[in-house]
Amino acid sequence: MAGKNSLLNAVNETIKKTREQNPIAPSITNMVTINFVANAQLAAGGRAFMVTQADEGKLIASISKSAYINLGTMMDWYDSTITEACKAFVENNNKWVFDPVGLGIGTLRTSLFKMMKDCKPAVIRGNASEIIGLASMWGVYESAKNSLSGVDSADSVAAAKIPAEMLAKFTGGAVAVSGKEDLVTDGTTTVICHGGSPMLSKITGAGCSLGGVICVYANIATPFEAALTGTVVYNEAAKKAEAKSRGPASFMQNFIDEIYCIDEDTILKSEIELVEG
Amino acid sequence: MAGKNSLLNAVNETIKKTREQNPIAPSITNMVTINFVANAQLAAGGRAFMVTQADEGKLIASISKSAYINLGTMMDWYDSTITEACKAFVENNNKWVFDPVGLGIGTLRTSLFKMMKDCKPAVIRGNASEIIGLASMWGVYESAKNSLSGVDSADSVAAAKIPAEMLAKFTGGAVAVSGKEDLVTDGTTTVICHGGSPMLSKITGAGCSLGGVICVYANIATPFEAALTGTVVYNEAAKKAEAKSRGPASFMQNFIDEIYCIDEDTILKSEIELVEG
Amino acid sequence: MAGKNSLLNAVNETIKKTREQNPIAPSITNMVTINFVANAQLAAGGRAFMVTQADEGKLIASISKSAYINLGTMMDWYDSTITEACKAFVENNNKWVFDPVGLGIGTLRTSLFKMMKDCKPAVIRGNASEIIGLASMWGVYESAKNSLSGVDSADSVAAAKIPAEMLAKFTGGAVAVSGKEDLVTDGTTTVICHGGSPMLSKITGAGCSLGGVICVYANIATPFEAALTGTVVYNEAAKKAEAKSRGPASFMQNFIDEIYCIDEDTILKSEIELVEG
Repeated sequence: MAGKNSLLNAVNETIKKTREQNPIAPSITNMVTINFVANAQLAAGGRAFMVTQADEGKLIASISKSAYINLGTMMDWYDSTITEACKAFVENNNKWVFDPVGLGIGTLRTSLFKMMKDCKPAVIRGNASEIIGLASMWGVYESAKNSLSGVDSADSVAAAKIPAEMLAKFTGGAVAVSGKEDLVTDGTTTVICHGGSPMLSKITGAGCSLGGVICVYANIATPFEAALTGTVVYNEAAKKAEAKSRGPASFMQNFIDEIYCIDEDTILKSEIELVEG
Repeated sequence: MAGKNSLLNAVNETIKKTREQNPIAPSITNMVTINFVANAQLAAGGRAFMVTQADEGKLIASISKSAYINLGTMMDWYDSTITEACKAFVENNNKWVFDPVGLGIGTLRTSLFKMMKDCKPAVIRGNASEIIGLASMWGVYESAKNSLSGVDSADSVAAAKIPAEMLAKFTGGAVAVSGKEDLVTDGTTTVICHGGSPMLSKITGAGCSLGGVICVYANIATPFEAALTGTVVYNEAAKKAEAKSRGPASFMQNFIDEIYCIDEDTILKSEIELVEG
Repeated sequence: MAGKNSLLNAVNETIKKTREQNPIAPSITNMVTINFVANAQLAAGGRAFMVTQADEGKLIASISKSAYINLGTMMDWYDSTITEACKAFVENNNKWVFDPVGLGIGTLRTSLFKMMKDCKPAVIRGNASEIIGLASMWGVYESAKNSLSGVDSADSVAAAKIPAEMLAKFTGGAVAVSGKEDLVTDGTTTVICHGGSPMLSKITGAGCSLGGVICVYANIATPFEAALTGTVVYNEAAKKAEAKSRGPASFMQNFIDEIYCIDEDTILKSEIELVEG
């Protein structure tokens, strides 16, 4: 099992390569935070490309090693768009990132989320309730209760540890759980990440944009490294941004600036801890 | 009739409760300003949840006491989404907030706006031309002329006083008219609110996001209190933001920060005046 | 051929008139940057109005002298919306502005872009690869290669000079090519514009919003003057914004503020050069 320092060195390596290579990270994502997702991806050193159509869904599988799906707002024709995209991800062996926002809400979304079980995403990023709910929907974990309501989490990150690990084992990829502390796991190695800021819950799209940024990193790193890099960058950028801000809008601006400016020393001081998997 | 001070005390009470309870205020809203609406709702202490589908429209009636509809940009399937949502609002006795932006433009929007007459919104928020136009469309006021053009108002708030009061009497709720001065009425008590900033017309979504914020407040206050609270908070936050800004983008950032930071003393100094209803 | 000074005087005249008249510049534009487009149009002194439906597409041709089309994200029903809008533009002799973002991607977009050849836009604004690709698609220039990939340019602005001039001659309007340097041409007069900032490529929507701002200016100026005014304003605002910013989000805020504040002296010092057409 890798130690804390070697993990943070891998994070720095991923950040550096991303800034050098500017990988494109295409997305099918929701209309509330689509601009934030794109700007966060650019700030991290990647390039953004948002699509909506079925043939575009297939296309993005062929132009990039990673892609991002977030169905926070559904378009009426997404049955074909998402089905075609996911089929193409499997065929092209894409490292696609999935944000299960809206889990349990609506028949179209539910039907697509169930379909995705067969298309194993490389990284799943959600809040605790979403991760517990998805693990339960996909039958890899038996949940005692359904805590979902709207798009916010009613569960603690600790409660999502086992479901997250089961999901990661099932997909062979990684799972990132966002919350007061964050958890990143590949099913074997599990890391708790400290930092962040309560201001992240005072802006819309912190989670969505983290998924998009992880997708950028997934282009040039393993799913686990990508999920960890995104999570650590967000925690450190948020901490710095909070110290400079007087409200959510100045926080949001400083946060994106900090993602853009994040340096190696800051990353190496990030508080992460390996826990037993 | 309540006095000025008791009204501003009710505003402060609504702000305080909202910050404590973080009510969820679901929306079906336009794609131009959807992010601003969500961030303004969060800044006011609420939670945001944006949906687009018919079954989600029904769902939001069941998960919150209030909801927000703004059809600035139409999706092709909104006939079913909005019809189902409005039907559910009536059945669940929701306090829903309606922004009649785009009134008079397009056959689908027009047909939905006419249907809404039977689903009486708890709060209607619009500019003067929209309020006059809606009162006329719903047959509660005979308008001498149609001043609508695009999404901006060609009429003064004073000209909208009678139509606003007639609308409020018809719905049994409240109407908020936004302009240089603002007017809030429940049909009996009518308040003119001063403050605000000309910069509000230099950013897109000031009106849309005010509707979303009123929806947050409507969760825990009467329609009239919610409309008044949103209007007073916007006026005071805008005044403070203008003093700190050199252009529309810095104004927008400061404005959201000020909504987040607004305090009791500022509210108590807000210039509002009761006028004869 | 007009000299440099007279061109910059025309730019100042266009800016001034726009601020006085606040022309409305309706758009059918993509969902990633729709908010940025609207706010940039407002900052330039115009008014924004975003639509999505076929009957609204026809309507915008009748309420304004100019309109803007950017199909970065496609809605399923855009076949009718865009076809109706473009037909109405031709009938009403509108000066419509076209951003060919996404050229070559997807069957629906490709079919609409081909149709647009018969509806000659007054201004085409794109990056070098898009302009070369469009000139090739419309058969006014034979391209040796297809360099399109995603939404970013793989070609230099210099390589787009001839295709841009051929396109402008074909439409009888103007073409603006955005890049490290920018090029504006009406087929006879060709201007290279310096300035700008590398930060423009670190935010999403610099190009989209420039198209929207050119559409505002096209309301009261010739296509060539409008394209030049937008390009010069963007270059000068970006230069000033970069000097004040530490990352992409502060740059974006300062950039919009600078568009709003831009003054005559700054414009007169802008580095533009007339080149042989």
